[in-house]
Formats: sequence, C-alpha cells, structure tokens
Amino acid sequence: MAEPLKVGLAGLGTVGTSVVRLLEDGRDKLVARSGRPIEVVAITARSRAKKRGADLKKYRWVADPLTLARDPSIDVLVEVIGGAGDPAKAAVEAALAAGKAVVTANKALLARHGQKLAALAERHGVALNFEAAVAGGIPVIKTLREGLNGNAFTRIYGILNGTCNYILSRMEQDRLGFEQCLREAQRLGYAEADPSFDVEGHDTAQKLSILASLAFGTKLDPAAIYVEGISSITLADLDAAEQLGYRVKLLGVAVKTEAGIEQRVHPTMVPKDSAIAQVMGVTNAVTIDAEGIMPITLVGPGAGGMATASAVVSDLADIARGVRGAPFGRPVSHMTATRRAPMQRHEGGYYIRLLARDHPGTAATIARRLAQRGISLDSIVQRHDAAEQRAASGRSGKPVPVIMITYATSEDAVRKALSAVRRDRVISGSPQVIRIEKN
Amino acid sequence: MAEPLKVGLAGLGTVGTSVVRLLEDGRDKLVARSGRPIEVVAITARSRAKKRGADLKKYRWVADPLTLARDPSIDVLVEVIGGAGDPAKAAVEAALAAGKAVVTANKALLARHGQKLAALAERHGVALNFEAAVAGGIPVIKTLREGLNGNAFTRIYGILNGTCNYILSRMEQDRLGFEQCLREAQRLGYAEADPSFDVEGHDTAQKLSILASLAFGTKLDPAAIYVEGISSITLADLDAAEQLGYRVKLLGVAVKTEAGIEQRVHPTMVPKDSAIAQVMGVTNAVTIDAEGIMPITLVGPGAGGMATASAVVSDLADIARGVRGAPFGRPVSHMTATRRAPMQRHEGGYYIRLLARDHPGTAATIARRLAQRGISLDSIVQRHDAAEQRAASGRSGKPVPVIMITYATSEDAVRKALSAVRRDRVISGSPQVIRIEKN
Repeated sequence: MAEPLKVGLAGLGTVGTSVVRLLEDGRDKLVARSGRPIEVVAITARSRAKKRGADLKKYRWVADPLTLARDPSIDVLVEVIGGAGDPAKAAVEAALAAGKAVVTANKALLARHGQKLAALAERHGVALNFEAAVAGGIPVIKTLREGLNGNAFTRIYGILNGTCNYILSRMEQDRLGFEQCLREAQRLGYAEADPSFDVEGHDTAQKLSILASLAFGTKLDPAAIYVEGISSITLADLDAAEQLGYRVKLLGVAVKTEAGIEQRVHPTMVPKDSAIAQVMGVTNAVTIDAEGIMPITLVGPGAGGMATASAVVSDLADIARGVRGAPFGRPVSHMTATRRAPMQRHEGGYYIRLLARDHPGTAATIARRLAQRGISLDSIVQRHDAAEQRAASGRSGKPVPVIMITYATSEDAVRKALSAVRRDRVISGSPQVIRIEKN
Repeated sequence: MAEPLKVGLAGLGTVGTSVVRLLEDGRDKLVARSGRPIEVVAITARSRAKKRGADLKKYRWVADPLTLARDPSIDVLVEVIGGAGDPAKAAVEAALAAGKAVVTANKALLARHGQKLAALAERHGVALNFEAAVAGGIPVIKTLREGLNGNAFTRIYGILNGTCNYILSRMEQDRLGFEQCLREAQRLGYAEADPSFDVEGHDTAQKLSILASLAFGTKLDPAAIYVEGISSITLADLDAAEQLGYRVKLLGVAVKTEAGIEQRVHPTMVPKDSAIAQVMGVTNAVTIDAEGIMPITLVGPGAGGMATASAVVSDLADIARGVRGAPFGRPVSHMTATRRAPMQRHEGGYYIRLLARDHPGTAATIARRLAQRGISLDSIVQRHDAAEQRAASGRSGKPVPVIMITYATSEDAVRKALSAVRRDRVISGSPQVIRIEKN
C-alpha cells in the first residue's frame, strides 16, 4: 500500500474531534477511494486537559499550532481553530511555507488573507483547500472550482448562515418575535452569546466574499460587500411576505452587472415557490446561475461537527489522491481586482412597509414622492386589520401600515424617495425596506 | 504555456455542438483554471452534411468513432453518441485500450458495461469521466466521488428524468391528464416519439444504477432495480396527494437496508414541504443521505445541450489538470457484488386508492384484510364529491373512491392484503398503490 498521508490537526472542538472520528471509522473506505490511508499523526489545541468525548491519547500532542505546522512528520495541516489572526494565521502560513498542504475551515482567515495564502500555496506548490469554510457540508467550493468549469457565472446567492435562517424560520412558523427566537437559538447552541456577527450579516459576508472570488475570478474583497442584518425584521414583514407570495431570507448575493460585481448581504424577499424559500431551520443553500443553463441549487447542512468534518475529510482525500487545483480556481496572477458595483446602483424590486399618518393627502404625498423618482408600484396594500378598522369607524387617527411592492427600480431612487417622504412628515417612524431577489 | 489537451469529439448533436461552443468561448478561462488549453482537434458524427448551426469546418473530420478513438493525435475521446451498443461502445473501448482518457454522457453504456469499462480505464491508467450521464448539469457524480468522501452513505434518491417530472408537474398545475401532458412534452421536445423508455422509468433506472454504485461501492446492477413508471398516475392521485400534504414524483431510490441494497424506481409521494417536492418541470434533483449529517440536495438542469456540455467540459478540465480518480470512486477490485434487497421486503408508508363497491360491509371487509396483514392506517378518506353525493341521496350504487395512507408496513403485506381485497370482490378495478418516501 502507498504511504499514508500524515495529518497534523490543530483544533479539537466539535469539528476537530469529528475529523478524527471520520478518519478512524472511514479508514478502509478512504483507502479504497484515495489509494492510501489518511492518518492523524499529531494534534494540538488550546487545552490538553479538556474532556472531548473522544480517545485522543494515541495521537502525539504538540505544544502549539505553529510547532505542529512546522513538524517534519506531517504532510498536511488541518486548521480548525478559527479566527482571522494568530495562532490560526501563523500556523497556516508556516505550514504552506514549509511546503505542506493545508485544509482549513476558517472563513474569517480566508476572507481577510485568502489572497496572500493562495499565493503562498502556489509558490510552494501545495494545496490549500477550504470546502468546510462555506456552507459546511455542501460541496459548493468544489462545484465552483471544478464542477462547472465551462460556464460563465452570472450570479451566486444563498443562505449561508444557519443562525439567521433558524431565527427567520422560527419567527414565521411559530409567530414569535426576533428577540425571542434569538434567545431560543442561543439556548440550542445555534447562536453565540454575542450574536451580532451572525445576525448582522458579517458571517454571511465573509462566506460570500469567498464564493464571489471563486465564481468571478476576482480578488477577495469583503470590504466591498454591502451588509445589512436581520434584527429589524418583524412579524409584520413576514406576514406581508406570506400574503404577497414571498418568504424573507438573509441572503448573500454576488452578481455580475454592467457596473461591476455587486456583492450584498441583506434580508431578502424570495418567491415562496423557489428552491431557496423552502430552506428552513439551520440548513444552508447556494444557487449558482451561469450563462445558458438553468440555475443549480445545493441544499444541506451549513454547520455541525460531522457535516463540517466531512468537508475537511473530502479535502484531505483530494490531497491524498494528488489533486491540487489553484485555491481560488485559477492562479493568483489571474485573479482580477473587483470592479465594485456600488449599492446605490443596485436594481430590483423593493418591498416597502411604512406607517402612514392618518391625514388627508398622505397617500397622494407618498405616491408623488415615489413617482418623482420614477418608481412604479406593482402592488400596494393596507394591512387588513387597519383597513377594517377604518371601514368600521372612519379615520382613527392611528398610523396605517402601508405595504408597497415596487417594479424594478434602483436603490438610489428608493432611498431618495423615502427620504423625501420622511421630510414630508406623512409617516411615523422609519420605513422598512426589503429587497426582492428574483429566481 | 503547457501542451493543450487534445480532444476527439464523437457525436455532434445538441450536446456535441454545445461542447464545441463552450470550449471556444471559455478558452481563456479554462486555460486559467486548468493550466492548459483544451482543444478539439478532430470530430465525427453520423452525417457530415447535416446542418448544425455551428462552424465545424475548422475541425478535422474523421470517418467514424472507432477511427477517431484510435487517432494518435487525440489525448481524450468525448463520446456523446449515446446507446449501450456500437459504435459508442466500440469507440470508448478502443480509446481506453489505446491509453486515452474518455469523457462520456452515455448512461446506457455505463449502466450496461460500466464495470468492464472502468476496469479497462484502470488497466490503462486513464480517466473515465461521466458527470454528464446523470442529471446533466448537476455535479452529482463529482459530489459522490469526491465531495463527501468521509461519509457512509445511507440513501440516495432523486428526480432523474425531466420528461416524467415535466408531465407530473403539468398534470398537477394545469389539471390535465397524463396523455395530454405527454403529448405536450412531445411537442416541446421533452419526450421522444416513443416515450416508454422515459415514462416507464427505465431511463431513471439506468441513472440510479450509476449513482448506487458510486454511493455504495457496489457493482453496477441495473437488473436489480424494481421499476414502475408514471403512466398509471391520474389526476385523482395528484389531488389526493395535495390534500394529504404530498406531491407525486417519479423517484429513483437506492437505500441501504438490513436486507441489502434496495434499488427502486416508482411514482412516489414526497412531503409537500420537502426540497424534492418543490422541483417542478424538467428540473432534476438528487438527495444524498449520509450517516451523522443532514441530507444534501442538489437541484438543477437534468438535460439540455448547454447543461450537459458544461458537465462534459468540467470532466475535460479535470483531465487537463491531471486529476484521475477511479471511475466509480474506488478500484474495480474493491467494488462489491450488490446484495439485493428484494422489493417484497421494502418497508414504508403506502398510499392506496381504490373504488369500493357501494354495498353494506365493504368497508369492514377492506379493513379486515389490511388488519390480517398487520397494516395500520394513518388516515382513510372518502373522496369529497362521492361523500357529498352519498349524504344527499343515500347509497347511489356507484363505487366510492377510498383513499388510505398506511403506517410503515411491508410491500409484501400490502400486495397480499390487496390481493385478498380483490378476491373479496368488494372493489371495482385495480387498486392504485403509491409508495411514500420520507425525507
């Protein structure tokens, strides 16, 4: 039998211990599939003493990730520590510089330093694989890098954060508010004690920057992404979406436009009968649009020890087989600077919900402001309860919820029209704006 | 720049000409991604004179596929002729025997001779790739072969035939009968003049045998598959499914059971809110279940020139990069004989629709026969119109449609119970039976 592929494993959380288990349990199958065994030979983690529910005694313990990365006995470093800084960064750099392949699940590190790390891997002729970094168990990296090679991608979008999708799904299914669902997500371990990285869209943005780079051959540029989270979404929005034939999802979207690559993360109305709308709970999904073919959607677990570990192991199996593609699908020298399409130039339909003051002329004022910016309405609805109330008792003096769906227009037009409406003092509070994504 | 990968293309239908176009249009991108150009150097097809809407004059014409396969100027044969026999078979064998890689979209050839061809490829150390053979534009072969390497698969199922899914979708959405939708599919070019290969499930069975082999490491065994088509499905079934929270899809299912690998193709009730139930029209979808992780579903175009060609080109790009995995994910010597789970031992829920004669004691007789076989009912419904009719006018003498959903039971029990019911002469015509697949 061929020489085993010798793995150094840095990080022994849920993912790390699941990698150990998968490699042990799947040993024979992996030999058959890759032609050689894949063996963990050394491990490290922050604490050696911590209980991990797995027998790790048989693996050689190394003091720290950097030492592990430089250990001459390993062929490949698996980095499942996380975080854009050290020790993950230093360890990955050291491994690549020492001519060792790296498998990482670290989206933050890749979003921030992916370019530099890919160049390092290229210079030393080693693999840098990161299937686990985006949408855990879904093979979206491989699909973009190898599976759809002949196509020109036009758009890639998806549900990349299980926490947000869990919260939105619970809100809709159980008619609960955002805060309550967030607490429930925290209780179940789906959300961190500080949930802002997830719920404000930053996690999605890091993953989107990786997908956009693979799809469009551009340099990673997370700062180019417009980011908006889900904390402002209310049950009223979900109800209105339902009535209008939509569901609300936090999407990351990267799309080729005439103005450049538009990258954005925001709550989005998606048609209720689309594949992406069916994705509930912590599940992730990615849709890939390419010229001349129908969209491809991949749905599956976005996180979880086994799902993420399975992605790590398939990356290892590729290395064991001797497969070595460019980390971002092409040589670093071929990766172009992103021509950013500014968010103001985004075009699409919009959902607008506002509380109109119950005064004569309010509707006319709002309609005029929209018309001034060339915005046409596909539909306008006054919420049922409010309408009934008015029919029964005439003007109540209470603000009336008004929900509008626009035809395709620009972000700029919507922002300017709504600023004007606010200055007119015909609405109460801030308008809610949710972009609509067509499938 | 590295030497180009020289391609001989056999077959110039929609897929073949789309391959030519993708390779021409995507040339620069493919060079960047694969490190070398991919060039068609010689072509062949049944008729040289046929108009193909593509300028093929610049490619060297070769008399026939076998000559092309042996042409010393090519590195790889792309076979998009189709059919399990010659000339496709002879050409693929000749190419492999001459040490050339092969990319094929030919499911029939693989289902029938995949084993032998994989052994030939292995012996000569060349790639045999066939992403296009199953679910056209969806990278399901790559996902099973490389993308989920660490996992033990437990079940794989999907919508693998666009014709059937188009017909079932049209029936449901437009409330039309099977025959009318079939004619519409033929008019649109989705169905052949002789549609039986598609609508009777044989196309799905060929594809399923390939997926099952990849997932379970078994030898290809299309004869082991239980096959039932969709021509018996009526609007009454689709309506009942709708009311019960299901949709009817033609699925190919391969599942690991205690009795062995169960492989079956039949109309199936799937929960309306499952990912697979949302797949409408000619779209294909495959769901992969593996131990310890949530299912992964891939949805996308199952056919069409560009989608299929895109799969062919990604196979070529892998070859250009020097990637060469075993055709069925492991060496032929590791592929085991399928231990077939007989259909009689299939266990699951069943939908049963029958026309009960309107006589006293009919219901009791049916219930007794089911109980004798240990079948419990989850629900029993008399169709609304019939029930109303009875309520209004008492017994009408007309048979009454009865729809039953069973709890999990065995195929054997259902068949025996229904035989007994038929012998009791309490029903009119044959019972309709549709298996339920849980997600």
